[in-house]
Amino acid sequence: MAPAVAHSQAESLLAFRLLLVGGMFSASTPPPGPLEKVFQYIDLHQDEFVQTLKEWVAVESDSVQPVPRLRRELLRMAGLAADRLRGLGARVASVDAGFQQLSDGQTLPIPPILLAELGSDPKKPTVCFYGHLDVQPARQEDGWLTDPYTLTEVDGKLYGRGTTDNKGPVLAWINAVSAFKALDEDLPVNIKFLIEGMEESGSLALEELVRKEKSGFFSSVDCIVISDNLWISRRKPALIYGTRGNSYFTVEVKCRDQDFHSGTFGGILNEPMADLVALLGSLVDASGRILVPGIYGHVAPVTEEEKRVYEAIDLDVEEYRNSSQVKKFLFDTKEELLMHLWRYPSLSIHGIEGAFHEPGAKTVIPGRVIGKFSIRLVPHMDMSVVETQVKQHLEYIFSKRNSSNQMTVSMALGLHPWIANISDHQYLAAKRAIKTVFGTEPDMIRDGSTIPIAKILQDTTQKSVIMLPLGAVDDGEHSQNEKINRWNYIEGSKLFAAFFLEMAKLHSSW
Amino acid sequence: MAPAVAHSQAESLLAFRLLLVGGMFSASTPPPGPLEKVFQYIDLHQDEFVQTLKEWVAVESDSVQPVPRLRRELLRMAGLAADRLRGLGARVASVDAGFQQLSDGQTLPIPPILLAELGSDPKKPTVCFYGHLDVQPARQEDGWLTDPYTLTEVDGKLYGRGTTDNKGPVLAWINAVSAFKALDEDLPVNIKFLIEGMEESGSLALEELVRKEKSGFFSSVDCIVISDNLWISRRKPALIYGTRGNSYFTVEVKCRDQDFHSGTFGGILNEPMADLVALLGSLVDASGRILVPGIYGHVAPVTEEEKRVYEAIDLDVEEYRNSSQVKKFLFDTKEELLMHLWRYPSLSIHGIEGAFHEPGAKTVIPGRVIGKFSIRLVPHMDMSVVETQVKQHLEYIFSKRNSSNQMTVSMALGLHPWIANISDHQYLAAKRAIKTVFGTEPDMIRDGSTIPIAKILQDTTQKSVIMLPLGAVDDGEHSQNEKINRWNYIEGSKLFAAFFLEMAKLHSSW
Repeated sequence: MAPAVAHSQAESLLAFRLLLVGGMFSASTPPPGPLEKVFQYIDLHQDEFVQTLKEWVAVESDSVQPVPRLRRELLRMAGLAADRLRGLGARVASVDAGFQQLSDGQTLPIPPILLAELGSDPKKPTVCFYGHLDVQPARQEDGWLTDPYTLTEVDGKLYGRGTTDNKGPVLAWINAVSAFKALDEDLPVNIKFLIEGMEESGSLALEELVRKEKSGFFSSVDCIVISDNLWISRRKPALIYGTRGNSYFTVEVKCRDQDFHSGTFGGILNEPMADLVALLGSLVDASGRILVPGIYGHVAPVTEEEKRVYEAIDLDVEEYRNSSQVKKFLFDTKEELLMHLWRYPSLSIHGIEGAFHEPGAKTVIPGRVIGKFSIRLVPHMDMSVVETQVKQHLEYIFSKRNSSNQMTVSMALGLHPWIANISDHQYLAAKRAIKTVFGTEPDMIRDGSTIPIAKILQDTTQKSVIMLPLGAVDDGEHSQNEKINRWNYIEGSKLFAAFFLEMAKLHSSW
Repeated sequence: MAPAVAHSQAESLLAFRLLLVGGMFSASTPPPGPLEKVFQYIDLHQDEFVQTLKEWVAVESDSVQPVPRLRRELLRMAGLAADRLRGLGARVASVDAGFQQLSDGQTLPIPPILLAELGSDPKKPTVCFYGHLDVQPARQEDGWLTDPYTLTEVDGKLYGRGTTDNKGPVLAWINAVSAFKALDEDLPVNIKFLIEGMEESGSLALEELVRKEKSGFFSSVDCIVISDNLWISRRKPALIYGTRGNSYFTVEVKCRDQDFHSGTFGGILNEPMADLVALLGSLVDASGRILVPGIYGHVAPVTEEEKRVYEAIDLDVEEYRNSSQVKKFLFDTKEELLMHLWRYPSLSIHGIEGAFHEPGAKTVIPGRVIGKFSIRLVPHMDMSVVETQVKQHLEYIFSKRNSSNQMTVSMALGLHPWIANISDHQYLAAKRAIKTVFGTEPDMIRDGSTIPIAKILQDTTQKSVIMLPLGAVDDGEHSQNEKINRWNYIEGSKLFAAFFLEMAKLHSSW
């Protein structure tokens, strides 16, 4: 019955849970354990939690637009969060992160990075939460139905910029801790917080700090929790255990630096655009298969166990297709779609620099053009092998054309894929916590895009990382009318509380 | 010997000519004819002619930048030209051309179009000169070695914006007429002028006026002379008898209006860029050959006579390649190069609208992209046949991909090729005039680009058109340090005078 409940309406599930908790108090033996009390506390104080989220959303902590007013809002936001953490009894270091140098010569302060700790009991595991307080830009005239910086509840949905990305999840973690504190219950884990304010602008200064604190702040950490993604469903929770990497390539074809007039030179040149279009056209076929020889050589084979993970995932392909506004995907089944998003590489051509890109008709032969494409990487592709394969392939294609132009291929950016071992403690603990709160197994999912922070934290600190999202698939992060459901926010707070307890239980058996 | 002279330095040729003319006066029988006197007059008054060009160049008659100050300069320029034409005794109509509506709602006056006539003797042929008084923008800081609006003579080169394009040639025609007038010699032809001030901005209002005047101003015209191109050599004159047309295509591939994130969707989409790159890649091969089936079907076959025309053209391939800053052309011989520029179609890919075109790395899957390419048309390609061939070809290529995207091909712009009959009177007259003035046969050339005015004038008025350029290949029209050689300007004035006489001679035998 549990899974059925998990798929029902938020309201009925909430009622069901309150009934359960209420039942425990009135008639059950044994008396309610600490978690039941925490759950009840969270339910009873949910309006306060929503109120705090409202206060946080009201701060226009936009890190993307580099203007002094917004930077002051980011500093104010960091101050609010530090106060809240201190209110929990945490020791908070607000680490100065220096300045951001803009291309126009302007300098703006980077908001401080918060390092906070609560408890240092060597008998308890130490769980570190990573989150961010900054948001994407939002203006009501972009298509918001409500003011983006005034949290507005409609039908159980809490609309506002940052509600799901990432202020809501940060507060859910704080709510969980605060419930233990308010009830004077012993926190089952030592808690650490790593909170930044520049995530939407490339996490400036973060990696440097993490590296510096590897044997300081992070030395006692057992695992790092990131809650900065979404489920793949509206109702079923998920755990994320991998993200794809990315190799971003540029291929330049040059005849000369200046453009030509297509009347005066058309017909006698190896035109760089013709070369480039042939090069880009050699990369991927109409079925999405990458044509670079050897590229699939290191892709991890699909195991039977893995297949079962995909089969268990809750995804309505038709609904997904409709909400994506796509007429037809390359694949029809859930399993094929998800595998091609998460565990197979993909190649996308992004565009061309140096050619005519404006509306209208210009009769130019571009003299020098730069094609841009990238390959999403998956385990166990090796970035330097991919780089060599792509370069060799393009050089071969180009040599066959006998063009007198000059071709240069560069890998402009390389981000490794990240994958977690789903047998690690934190995944086991998270699964159990999800079962306790939502009465179901989570979707075990990956993210097709690249979230460098997971890989950076894992590689730099050598600690296990888990992505434990709270938001539903339709939350609209980065989009207009971003929201978090009240249900996700409140049950998510409970989830973190349950996770603390499960981590502690597992720790005692380490 | 004559051709050798034509290839020598300007100074020595001028000296040689002065010697000839001088010789005629001192010892020759019979006494000098009207043309000899006209030539001498032009030589003796050349500094005055240069001075007038200097006055005209000093007017910043830039029609490209839509600002009131420059528009006033254009009106002033039209006034100067009208005065000069009236000074010749011409009847000048300054036709109001209305207003230009700018995209920002601003309105600017279009300079008046001058229609002038001098003589209406039914026994003489009527020759109409088309020219323009407006110029491309120029600022010294763009790389001019002298102030672009102060005509400056260095080593026989008259530097200044508009010297060759097109104020110099307009004045050369006026100089020729003025010499006859000053000498009180009978003008061998009736003269008409069609002078506009918006050529560099698409000849606004011109076509409408020409259509309106078809059976008025143009009814008595025998041929129209355009002198708005350049020779293909520094020293050898040329006649232009054809220009290529242009069919400009857009091919749109659409999945949806918004872009996708390449992490979140890469791997499961028919990506519009992959489709578009395949479509564009199917258009032309590495040797420059257009791959659209049937496209060469209507291209006029090369005749033996035509081959000889190409062989006779004066072009140093190596110098041309160097000055073009191109490592290697698709063809090695002069004949192949010129034929592929002038008498064969060519296809150029200009760029893509809707894709990522900026510097840097953006992981976008463009949702809707528009490729742009154009085909330079030659006789006897039919624009509507070409349109059908291109559409059918792209539809075939697209259908083979089985893509779920939507493709739309449009011909955005179509300009017919123009070709003149080089046996027409005006070509014969121009050849003879060139022989008289320069002692050589002209290069018989075409222009690979599309000059709509020739085709428009020919089609609208049903009169023969000739392009009779005065400027040398290195004059740098539209470029920094535009110039006309004093030699080209002065000998060009004589050329027009000789042309009047040759037209009259041919007319008497009509």
